Amino acid sequence: MFRLDELVARLGGEVCGDASVEVRRVATLDQAESGDLAFVANRRYFSRLHSSAASAVIVGLDARALLDGRSGILTADPYLYFARVAQLFNPPPAVRPGVHLLAVVSCSLPSTVEVGAGASIDEGAEIGEDVIIGPGSHIGRGTRIGRGTRLAANVTIQHDCVVGENCIIHSGAVIGADGFGFAREKDGRWVKIPQVGRVVIGNEVEIGANTTIDRGALDDTVIGNGCKLDNQVQIAHNVRIGENTAIAGCVGIAGSTTIGARCMIGGQAGIIGHLLICDDVVVSAGTLVSKSLTRPGVYTANLPLQPHADWVRNFAHLRHLDTLVVRVRALESELENQNHKGGPDDRKLG
Amino acid sequence: MFRLDELVARLGGEVCGDASVEVRRVATLDQAESGDLAFVANRRYFSRLHSSAASAVIVGLDARALLDGRSGILTADPYLYFARVAQLFNPPPAVRPGVHLLAVVSCSLPSTVEVGAGASIDEGAEIGEDVIIGPGSHIGRGTRIGRGTRLAANVTIQHDCVVGENCIIHSGAVIGADGFGFAREKDGRWVKIPQVGRVVIGNEVEIGANTTIDRGALDDTVIGNGCKLDNQVQIAHNVRIGENTAIAGCVGIAGSTTIGARCMIGGQAGIIGHLLICDDVVVSAGTLVSKSLTRPGVYTANLPLQPHADWVRNFAHLRHLDTLVVRVRALESELENQNHKGGPDDRKLG
Amino acid sequence: MFRLDELVARLGGEVCGDASVEVRRVATLDQAESGDLAFVANRRYFSRLHSSAASAVIVGLDARALLDGRSGILTADPYLYFARVAQLFNPPPAVRPGVHLLAVVSCSLPSTVEVGAGASIDEGAEIGEDVIIGPGSHIGRGTRIGRGTRLAANVTIQHDCVVGENCIIHSGAVIGADGFGFAREKDGRWVKIPQVGRVVIGNEVEIGANTTIDRGALDDTVIGNGCKLDNQVQIAHNVRIGENTAIAGCVGIAGSTTIGARCMIGGQAGIIGHLLICDDVVVSAGTLVSKSLTRPGVYTANLPLQPHADWVRNFAHLRHLDTLVVRVRALESELENQNHKGGPDDRKLG
Repeated sequence: MFRLDELVARLGGEVCGDASVEVRRVATLDQAESGDLAFVANRRYFSRLHSSAASAVIVGLDARALLDGRSGILTADPYLYFARVAQLFNPPPAVRPGVHLLAVVSCSLPSTVEVGAGASIDEGAEIGEDVIIGPGSHIGRGTRIGRGTRLAANVTIQHDCVVGENCIIHSGAVIGADGFGFAREKDGRWVKIPQVGRVVIGNEVEIGANTTIDRGALDDTVIGNGCKLDNQVQIAHNVRIGENTAIAGCVGIAGSTTIGARCMIGGQAGIIGHLLICDDVVVSAGTLVSKSLTRPGVYTANLPLQPHADWVRNFAHLRHLDTLVVRVRALESELENQNHKGGPDDRKLG
Repeated sequence: MFRLDELVARLGGEVCGDASVEVRRVATLDQAESGDLAFVANRRYFSRLHSSAASAVIVGLDARALLDGRSGILTADPYLYFARVAQLFNPPPAVRPGVHLLAVVSCSLPSTVEVGAGASIDEGAEIGEDVIIGPGSHIGRGTRIGRGTRLAANVTIQHDCVVGENCIIHSGAVIGADGFGFAREKDGRWVKIPQVGRVVIGNEVEIGANTTIDRGALDDTVIGNGCKLDNQVQIAHNVRIGENTAIAGCVGIAGSTTIGARCMIGGQAGIIGHLLICDDVVVSAGTLVSKSLTRPGVYTANLPLQPHADWVRNFAHLRHLDTLVVRVRALESELENQNHKGGPDDRKLG
Repeated sequence: MFRLDELVARLGGEVCGDASVEVRRVATLDQAESGDLAFVANRRYFSRLHSSAASAVIVGLDARALLDGRSGILTADPYLYFARVAQLFNPPPAVRPGVHLLAVVSCSLPSTVEVGAGASIDEGAEIGEDVIIGPGSHIGRGTRIGRGTRLAANVTIQHDCVVGENCIIHSGAVIGADGFGFAREKDGRWVKIPQVGRVVIGNEVEIGANTTIDRGALDDTVIGNGCKLDNQVQIAHNVRIGENTAIAGCVGIAGSTTIGARCMIGGQAGIIGHLLICDDVVVSAGTLVSKSLTRPGVYTANLPLQPHADWVRNFAHLRHLDTLVVRVRALESELENQNHKGGPDDRKLG
């Protein structure tokens, strides 16, 4: 339970209306009840403000008039402010230090670490203070995990990897499995190339459920500080990702590609191997990146959806697009010819 | 072992030929041996009927003549009938009540529940009768699981979620991990928005291996009764899916999208966030849905495959499609002009 | 530590320069230090050869002159040679026979098997010599695993499956979950078809992290000898894959499709169900295969990436491609007409 003036004292912003109003929860405008603090981050939702039962509302500096007597907090970025209030109201669960009787720890551990049932930590691992290793999770030998990092249940981190501080790794994530590296015999058989690099993950990184990050072949796979990876993302060996890049669900990034800082990769996008993507690139959902990108900006390659019959009618032509272009060029030549000679067929006209 | 008349007494349909024929297994027409019951659901396969060694065959009402003296069962929907017979021949393995010595259960459990080795169930969870929690699976605190639901090995369900009755959840599925929600600082750093909603799953839902369903940010993520999700499906926070919708493998659905009842989403399709998809929509494989769909029907957006050299020749033009349209428009103007003026170039002809 | 002449004695090739040079590691040209053996498999990197600190370099037969006094090994396929040397320097970790106290084994095991903490092996499973079952992994009843196969942590293999010899299965892989098979009631409800087939995997197969391979409906799902599957691949029920086929990350293959030997399927590609793909087919990244392929070769269907504004301008026309083709055809008719009649509009000219 916080008063609006207490929130402003902690997080900045300006109280509008009754500063003694108390709020105990964050909520959407539509769902908010009395005692809730809602927010409006988008002008589209201004109209819902008046019907909301929220006790107070976070709004932008330009929306002071809209509060119209209501209590609220004015701030430059209401969504960011909402995030900070939400963190205040919903701190992560406290670490419950101790190793479960049914966990197996083969290295020394700080006393502040929590290790769940069925978890296993191999020889030579180094685990920082206040780390949580969820039930069923496995940490390979020699792997280092920084202080404050939390692993949910059933996470796997293979040997000799590095995870920074204050990371969150969700269930089913697999970090440090072998990269996909093979040489091919003449008869088609594949010879495995041992993957002897590591995965090195910075601080404040979040890794989604069932996301996979492969260890490097010879060098390392590197995820920069502050990166956020959604669920079911696949990061191949020797990929390097700059700081604060966010990657949405189901994205695949092929081997040895380097991605800059502050990029945003949309859901189900793919990036092929051995590319360089510069800082501040945004890739739209479902887009396959097949060449290096040297300029910041938004890049897209996906298809407009159509009713199936329309799709059949329109897309059949894609197989013959070159023929169509040739036909247009022929028409242009013909007309050009006519204009030059004085008519569509000089001989006939002559 | 069932006689055909026993099957018909239980499941309906009409026996054709010898009602005392006994069958012990279902099989495809091609693989069937003596003692097997095969089915023909598709006219394409009628021709294989005569060479099949099956002891009896399930056929449609229109195929009576095709049986030609063979024993069989006539029914309106042979594939549905086959499914019911297959269930009769292959009931799910019985629950083996009891908690494994190496499982950890921190709540009270009905005596009919089976909990496998290495599984863990946290405080305050509520588990219904006849539930199976597979080896290595984890159930978070406060999560409710309805009677008859079966979790395979290594399933993870986080805290405070709800799973209905008679669901099947396959290995590696992760339910209730944090949604992907962040606000962005001016310098590009991401501030996590605590995900305090739940995942609420109805009855008779099947969830495939390594599928992920994130918990809601403020409200819940909801999967309706009877939904079937294949493997490696990703459902983001606050998605709501109506009853009996089926989603094939590798589909990704972004945050806050609502999908109606009885939809069918093809493999590797994607649906972007904040959309409304109405009931009875079918999305083709590999299709990205980028706008709301308000009418039932089949929607498609994917590309025709070509030999690589043809693809290079044809698809290079996609980058210049607008130029091509402009060129066609210019040709049309020019010809229109000619016709209007009486010739390709009036001055020369005049 | 190996001398160059020792390597050549084991692996073939020809020493160039000082045969007594000792190397202890493989490395990339750029990262190599003294004591390292680097390789050049691609003419593009020849220029980096001279600045490399590597003690010796593996090069192609055509690159003898480039060594220019340096020590090295000449071989027909430097990348393949590098793979073999890397295997020599980095043998897989030795099996540490024994069953962990916190593992549960309900079948008899050879004494050479290693079973990690939290692993469980059900009744009737048959495990070969020198097998490793990683921590938290689960093997269902009746499943057979061939000698020398290694399962990482948290792998799940369901009942009655077969895995060959010397396979590697990475964390989070799920083998033998139910295929996605349902018949539909008139009201839209789905009736589960019991999946009674198996998964049968050959020898020397590698299966990536979080990859899923479903069991067959009636018949088996089959993965041939020597196949390599990357992470997050989804193989549906009754798929059959020929020998030495390689499948990159995030690929989905729908039910009952058969794929030949020595195929290479690019990342995020998809193959729809009930197709036949012949031997030696290469599918490009992000390509949806929607028809059977009867000829070897490279097949592609993906989109060129564009800056978002260009994409908007160009791709809007895709919805109207048929209209464009109709317009071009009209222009062709009109011009054809003109030429035939002697002018753009005979009546006016007459």
